[in-house]
Amino acid sequence: MFEQHPYGKLISEYIQNEKYPSQPADLYNPIKYILSLSGKRIRPMLVLMGARLFGKEDLKEVVPAAIAIEYFHNFSLIHDDIMDRAPLRRGQATVHQKWNDNVAILSGDALLVKAYQELGKSPGDRIPSLLQVFNKIALEVCEGQQLDMDFEKIDYVSEDEYLNMIRLKTSVLLGGALQMGSILAYADEKQQQLIYDFGVNLGIAFQLQDDYLDVYGDPSAFGKQVGGDILCNKKTYLRIKTEQLIFGEAKTEFDDLIASDTIEDGEKVRRMKNLYAKFQVDRYAEDIKLRYTDLAYNKLEQISVSEPQKAELRKLADTLMHRTR
Amino acid sequence: MFEQHPYGKLISEYIQNEKYPSQPADLYNPIKYILSLSGKRIRPMLVLMGARLFGKEDLKEVVPAAIAIEYFHNFSLIHDDIMDRAPLRRGQATVHQKWNDNVAILSGDALLVKAYQELGKSPGDRIPSLLQVFNKIALEVCEGQQLDMDFEKIDYVSEDEYLNMIRLKTSVLLGGALQMGSILAYADEKQQQLIYDFGVNLGIAFQLQDDYLDVYGDPSAFGKQVGGDILCNKKTYLRIKTEQLIFGEAKTEFDDLIASDTIEDGEKVRRMKNLYAKFQVDRYAEDIKLRYTDLAYNKLEQISVSEPQKAELRKLADTLMHRTR
Repeated sequence: MFEQHPYGKLISEYIQNEKYPSQPADLYNPIKYILSLSGKRIRPMLVLMGARLFGKEDLKEVVPAAIAIEYFHNFSLIHDDIMDRAPLRRGQATVHQKWNDNVAILSGDALLVKAYQELGKSPGDRIPSLLQVFNKIALEVCEGQQLDMDFEKIDYVSEDEYLNMIRLKTSVLLGGALQMGSILAYADEKQQQLIYDFGVNLGIAFQLQDDYLDVYGDPSAFGKQVGGDILCNKKTYLRIKTEQLIFGEAKTEFDDLIASDTIEDGEKVRRMKNLYAKFQVDRYAEDIKLRYTDLAYNKLEQISVSEPQKAELRKLADTLMHRTR
Repeated sequence: MFEQHPYGKLISEYIQNEKYPSQPADLYNPIKYILSLSGKRIRPMLVLMGARLFGKEDLKEVVPAAIAIEYFHNFSLIHDDIMDRAPLRRGQATVHQKWNDNVAILSGDALLVKAYQELGKSPGDRIPSLLQVFNKIALEVCEGQQLDMDFEKIDYVSEDEYLNMIRLKTSVLLGGALQMGSILAYADEKQQQLIYDFGVNLGIAFQLQDDYLDVYGDPSAFGKQVGGDILCNKKTYLRIKTEQLIFGEAKTEFDDLIASDTIEDGEKVRRMKNLYAKFQVDRYAEDIKLRYTDLAYNKLEQISVSEPQKAELRKLADTLMHRTR
């Protein structure tokens, strides 16, 4: 979707040109491997866009912080995949699967350190503020991942708890990326807060859309099995909202669907979708997604730069939020 | 040994007074736990001593960097213990043992981020240099750990490869701690390099002494099973030197001792010690330890501060190197 964007290319070229020591091979090869599985590079693009928004001309001074964000994101993928026992990442074997857990732990650690190394290549007078923001979001991402794992083990998760978890696990990184860009453009604290809030709210909307598309997306465009979240009993927004509203016989059917491991996949998805329809959780999901999208655009409105300067970010947000895959 | 040192107390108090969010409990409790297993706090003390050496009066400005080093060290313990499947650390259950691997991975990650958070509390104009040194040594420690694991899987490790591994895995952190202290005292690059080299060489000597004491130490004072390294076929300096020198029948016996899993523990240690004695590897080990100790003291000599100012560090080094446990 953004592979051909000039910023995306800038990031990918920088990553491809990075030189690594040949030894220890099991430390550096997994890093090269995960970075070569081409992601959308949206997070580092946000750093560049955050800086451009506030008039930064020299993007060379911004690229290291953008790379730091991309390295951090890939570090978290390596470690999350171990914890989730995920065999595949972007259609390829995960690091712990291709090598082993120890290699994945240690190469992830090294990639996290390399993220800070890139951050340290930023203009010296910007480093203290960048470091503060980066550390805050990095710790929050860890908190989000722990909450996500905690939620798998408990019966009931509230809507607020869920929204807080996705905010920490995925959204603060988007907000933080934009804020770091704005720091590099010497934006003041108020402007920094606005662009951060834009990113966080957009990120929450994006994750809610992800939950929605998992059930209602076009399978050919979405590129995943439709209903995957239903099949693995994932506590998504749709499920949580259903549990909030459901009662009577429907509740019994819901509990049976969750508990059963004999119901055939297609039937389980069909019946759960019927329950969602009955309590209109698809509409609740659409509504809350729009609420966070509006919140995001509202923050963007308030930023004190001319409308044409906001066009780039608005276009990115539009593309992300009207996507069908 | 240093628990009563005023610097050690300063560090321990700071750590004890640190407040943590109550949630997610499985993220923060393991961090509190590992930090409460009282270590010797030598590494953070080195940051404080490095700063004092170059005349830094206000230690409050130095403490955050010292804490960063201590947090980093404890992060590496949590992750190394997973990789080494170690059940005990300082006589208590390791984090992955007390909780599980996932908790140990993620709380380790969070502790590494917290290390950078502490670093970020240093005086702003010192942060870029501190970050650079910290990142360099952090990546080297990862390299050392990978090499250490690689060495377990290969038959032969050369003396140089071994010395390089212990330099990376344990010594650069000591050198880096001192250098970070010197940066906070505005020492110039030449002085920084000297204090770094002092620490690295002292660290190598200390690790070589550790190898030696594992075989020749007083069991009651050393606090570990004597000959533990021999029993688990660890590729220590003594073993590597022996393999370099050994030939003929002795070589056959050496290979038999390594390969056998039926020889009784006491006998294995006794027979291996006989082989060490035959090729005088205990003396080689003493010699090389002294060589690195001398190198360290020589670097300390060259530092351009008055002799009384060096007394503190010299005393620490003396204590470390004449220790019997």
